[in-house]
Amino acid sequence: MTTPLPRDLAARLITIETVADPRIAGYRNIRERDLVRQGGFIAEGTVVLDHLLVSGRFAATSLFILRNRVEGIADRLALVPEDVPIYVAENAVMDAIAGFAVHRGVLAHASERATDTDRTLAGFLDDAPKGGGPLVVAIGLANHDNVGALFRNAAAFGASGVVLDGASCHPLYRKAIRVSVGTALTLPWHHGAMASDIADALERSGHLPIALSPKGEMQLTELTKGERLALIVGSEGRGLPDALLRRCRTVRIEMAPGIDSLNVATSAAIVLAKLYSAA
Amino acid sequence: MTTPLPRDLAARLITIETVADPRIAGYRNIRERDLVRQGGFIAEGTVVLDHLLVSGRFAATSLFILRNRVEGIADRLALVPEDVPIYVAENAVMDAIAGFAVHRGVLAHASERATDTDRTLAGFLDDAPKGGGPLVVAIGLANHDNVGALFRNAAAFGASGVVLDGASCHPLYRKAIRVSVGTALTLPWHHGAMASDIADALERSGHLPIALSPKGEMQLTELTKGERLALIVGSEGRGLPDALLRRCRTVRIEMAPGIDSLNVATSAAIVLAKLYSAA
Repeated sequence: MTTPLPRDLAARLITIETVADPRIAGYRNIRERDLVRQGGFIAEGTVVLDHLLVSGRFAATSLFILRNRVEGIADRLALVPEDVPIYVAENAVMDAIAGFAVHRGVLAHASERATDTDRTLAGFLDDAPKGGGPLVVAIGLANHDNVGALFRNAAAFGASGVVLDGASCHPLYRKAIRVSVGTALTLPWHHGAMASDIADALERSGHLPIALSPKGEMQLTELTKGERLALIVGSEGRGLPDALLRRCRTVRIEMAPGIDSLNVATSAAIVLAKLYSAA
Repeated sequence: MTTPLPRDLAARLITIETVADPRIAGYRNIRERDLVRQGGFIAEGTVVLDHLLVSGRFAATSLFILRNRVEGIADRLALVPEDVPIYVAENAVMDAIAGFAVHRGVLAHASERATDTDRTLAGFLDDAPKGGGPLVVAIGLANHDNVGALFRNAAAFGASGVVLDGASCHPLYRKAIRVSVGTALTLPWHHGAMASDIADALERSGHLPIALSPKGEMQLTELTKGERLALIVGSEGRGLPDALLRRCRTVRIEMAPGIDSLNVATSAAIVLAKLYSAA
């Protein structure tokens, strides 16, 4: 049983029939150009689209939807601002444009709203809500999956925001957004500062830096909720630089003998869950 | 500065110079045949190799190492039983055989030691150590990454074993082993039973089944350590079947408003960490 599309929606769909159509240039060879380019990034999937549509910081510039997905997501498409074009195409055309099989059939091209673009780290930290959840800080976290998962976990446990140094993967990489289930578009974040500048800024803004370390001075069970905690995580391979560790309270998660590592985003989730559920 | 290889090791290296060499047939086109085949599976990377070398259940049938990695892992290679051939090749030959770029340069072909192959679920559950950590049970968990991460987290928090139904990804898929950081080769597990049979068997073996659910009857903070807990997790999309949920105590992890899901392996880690650190 197929429901006809609402007339308003049907009228605004723009059919793309050729790979060369200039209107969908932003979607061409997505994988090869999977960079945060000047002027935009690609978001994919309905869950991510939901986050994009409510994001205060980012806005869709267009949507590109597989023809046979339109009906199933008509409710969502009705929420897309009227000045945002909705392109549709058949499977073969869409895949040829994107340069890979777009199984999800839902892509959006988006960009940052102008006002936010040159925000300083100090300004970002000052804006972090007092009495809100902990801040999550990633240093040298280059893996896209881990950055995405870190966002997902931070959002699940009410973190007030995420700070990533310049050596960490940018949260707007397509894969990071996807693994974050869209929270990279809604949770406040700052990317690009140097680790030492982040530590200085946290100190100035009155955040207490907590780092996870197998040799941590206290057990996680001893960690209590506090004002302005900043949970700092590093890369799985190298961990955090010693100079940074020395400026932190260090916490260890008790693990079975012989095991000394967890996935970095999983470790963060365990700490954030503990803090979130603490009285 | 290069250290010469120990003479014993140097003498047993078998150089592979052509893609067609029948001795490395087990490594050919790994990706296309990424299945748990009759008679063997592929493990990759040094951490996984370490687990394989100490596994009681699985044994390496051969190793296949990139020439320029040999020296760096000479200590490990010295632990490989003498009847296990160690093949080495240059980059181009190895990649051509495997069918992809073997960045890690360390592959092993391995198989199950004969005695374990037709173990029943009931026998497996009876063997689970009394007073050991919880059992982890996966139902319909088809994603290779999630199965691997579930193993990693189960091992980190002292789980006594993992039970996976037939709809779950097999733990010996290359990617599952890799993401498990080798624990799929050392943690006891059983794969292949039907969900309802698993629930029956858990009941008979005296395990208390605990399931995670956003609508769980108790909060995680109320969950206490107990004898023979079985933590049951389902697929991220569909969750657990109702018939199974009704047979479980259900637990919810408190999350920020508007968020109702975490990655399944991450959820399990949070519960297992809580149980592990509980007095």
